[in-house]
Amino acid sequence: MNAVINQQSLEQYMQQLGEQAKSASSILANAEPGRKNDALLAIADALITQRDAVKQANDKDLAQGKNDGLDEAMLDRLELTDERIEGMVEGLRQVSALADPIGQITDMDYRPSGIQVGKMRVPLGVIGIIYESRPNVTIDAAALCLKSGNATILRGGKEALHSNQAITECIQSGLKSVGLPEHAVQVINTTDRAAVGILLSMSDSVDVIIPRGGKGLIERVSREAKIPVIKHLDGICHVYIDDQAELTKAFDIALNSKTHRYGVCNAMETLLIAKNVAEKILPELVTAYREKGVELKGCENTRKIDADMKAATAEDWDTEYLAPVLSIRLVDDMQQAIEHINLHGSHHTDSIVTENYTRARQFLATVDSSSVMINASTRFADGFEYGLGAEIGISTDKIHARGPVGLEGLTSQKYIVFGDGHIRQ
Amino acid sequence: MNAVINQQSLEQYMQQLGEQAKSASSILANAEPGRKNDALLAIADALITQRDAVKQANDKDLAQGKNDGLDEAMLDRLELTDERIEGMVEGLRQVSALADPIGQITDMDYRPSGIQVGKMRVPLGVIGIIYESRPNVTIDAAALCLKSGNATILRGGKEALHSNQAITECIQSGLKSVGLPEHAVQVINTTDRAAVGILLSMSDSVDVIIPRGGKGLIERVSREAKIPVIKHLDGICHVYIDDQAELTKAFDIALNSKTHRYGVCNAMETLLIAKNVAEKILPELVTAYREKGVELKGCENTRKIDADMKAATAEDWDTEYLAPVLSIRLVDDMQQAIEHINLHGSHHTDSIVTENYTRARQFLATVDSSSVMINASTRFADGFEYGLGAEIGISTDKIHARGPVGLEGLTSQKYIVFGDGHIRQ
Repeated sequence: MNAVINQQSLEQYMQQLGEQAKSASSILANAEPGRKNDALLAIADALITQRDAVKQANDKDLAQGKNDGLDEAMLDRLELTDERIEGMVEGLRQVSALADPIGQITDMDYRPSGIQVGKMRVPLGVIGIIYESRPNVTIDAAALCLKSGNATILRGGKEALHSNQAITECIQSGLKSVGLPEHAVQVINTTDRAAVGILLSMSDSVDVIIPRGGKGLIERVSREAKIPVIKHLDGICHVYIDDQAELTKAFDIALNSKTHRYGVCNAMETLLIAKNVAEKILPELVTAYREKGVELKGCENTRKIDADMKAATAEDWDTEYLAPVLSIRLVDDMQQAIEHINLHGSHHTDSIVTENYTRARQFLATVDSSSVMINASTRFADGFEYGLGAEIGISTDKIHARGPVGLEGLTSQKYIVFGDGHIRQ
Repeated sequence: MNAVINQQSLEQYMQQLGEQAKSASSILANAEPGRKNDALLAIADALITQRDAVKQANDKDLAQGKNDGLDEAMLDRLELTDERIEGMVEGLRQVSALADPIGQITDMDYRPSGIQVGKMRVPLGVIGIIYESRPNVTIDAAALCLKSGNATILRGGKEALHSNQAITECIQSGLKSVGLPEHAVQVINTTDRAAVGILLSMSDSVDVIIPRGGKGLIERVSREAKIPVIKHLDGICHVYIDDQAELTKAFDIALNSKTHRYGVCNAMETLLIAKNVAEKILPELVTAYREKGVELKGCENTRKIDADMKAATAEDWDTEYLAPVLSIRLVDDMQQAIEHINLHGSHHTDSIVTENYTRARQFLATVDSSSVMINASTRFADGFEYGLGAEIGISTDKIHARGPVGLEGLTSQKYIVFGDGHIRQ
């Protein structure tokens, strides 16, 4: 694609990808489950046999990245170690072992007219996936889309172009080896930023766009897309410790939600504590957080209990730290906690710790988030933990898929009607 | 709203509607089912007691419409007869009798970690509905949104402004009488076209837009909206008569799909017939269609059997007539029929008539439409016929709701997690 030098030929190139994807999608939509699974296993085998080529391509990207002054964290995300390649192989095998969602027929009920009506699960069609530096996303995304009968157009980060091309060769050779169209998975082979803009407007051939990456990327995609987007914005998650909480559970959940992993969207960013129990639980929690190296920021009342922590500013309540930093606020009661969560949260994941039945029920109903929990760590908000078998992301949208998106989120249901010559009276 | 004279005050007015709707939606989302039903019944009562005021407002619109030279069909859609008002009252009572979808908890399964994960059905939030001349849509849309716990911002046709205002007074008095916020249902009280543009960009307060009306409206909304849209474009529906069809069923279904009603989106617009059986079934069908006054247009091979019909042009295969006009094409086999449907159809509703098990199954899987039928009239594609109890439209989208959209299509599901102090290991 070095030949792509002007806007017109880029347009043509993108249109061609779109048409090829659309044509592949109609074959994929009706591919037998066994054949899709064979393709996944063949791609895994190709990754193993072509491992050296993939690593050489990755070395090129790494060298280029160092030249371009990428920071250590970015270089780390970019690198395909043996372990990561094995992780990709393992992921492909796991997806092949999942139940196939396509063609599933449900709810076939007879109606008074005599017709029988229900639903059949079908693929969405063509999915455009836009992501940043990690090349292993290429395999994860391709595998889930393939299993759910969708064709994919992938746009990875420009830093990973060679790695993604090498991985795509494995994918396409796997597809071909089982007789599925190689255009079922295509990578946009140019680093031209304008390609993303074109992809986001290809409503004739692309059915849905999934952005995976930082806030900047997702906001750009949301703003420009002329196609439905399944997006995951930030994760500002809360734990609320009620004054009827069992305090040992509260301690475990508050600690785990923050410190199990820091750079993940389902980590807690703000801890809310009912003021009646703050003096009982806060000192012990503060000690534990500090032992783990977590920086604490508190509201005025929190700092009356622990004067050593910084004051939280208004901005803190709206911040996704993705780091060992935690803001803490004391609230009057659950009502105030819920108001805080619905106002400052990102509708991702929020948890209450309480033994009170009525409050638990009310929290469940009233908190407007994609995952609402009782007495459990926010870290459970995850496709694998929820039993989806895999996850392409966590949607904070309300339309279509909400929460962790697995195979089912990449499908749609159409109505089917069985009759025996029935007509409307 | 005559005071709205400049863009700035219009912006402010729209933002105010949005904020009021958002605030009402959080109350509605947790309103008890009984209270929502009481509101629906109170609105029905208000329509009865305020019938004269509603009709007077409607008379104003009708007089204005005549002045402005609206055609007979538009004036007819605009008119609120006693019968139509009774229809609205009856509709409200029916919606109140439906099962409440909100709060429904499903699929609570235990996971190996010990947490219990499932889903809870919740409202979408604030729904913007943009429609054209029929004022009864104001009641239908408000009723479905209210029952599903959503706040609504309604934008009716400018021809119906007075009628919609009078109806909205009934709605708001009904809401107030049961203690629900009157801003749960608001009508945009200006005919300024710019208001639609603003509504389509209010992503902070509006969660989804539903356009109901002609192709022009829906295309404008799709193009401009910065918010997810549940849309229904055209209905180019097909019946395919296979060469293994039982011909009496084929005759009934082909006739009913076209002639039961003409101006509806689930009427058949193109009839496809396997060439092997065309001579057997076509002459009888042609006679029946002509008796009903249906104008026929045929492909070359169709016209070899009946030379009296006009030749169908390439454009005919892509046309939604919404009228007593039908295009007919002979095809080699089911494969060609499916290709025709997926290429020329609008992914709305398509039906095969066949006794062949394998073909029926293949047609179901391969036709990419929101309703796919075997041996049944396309006219069954309807929320009431499918048992949804009501319908706000028929979605030809694949994302979120597909096919007839009832109460469930106006909701979302969030994940809920029950634990007992569980943390991630």
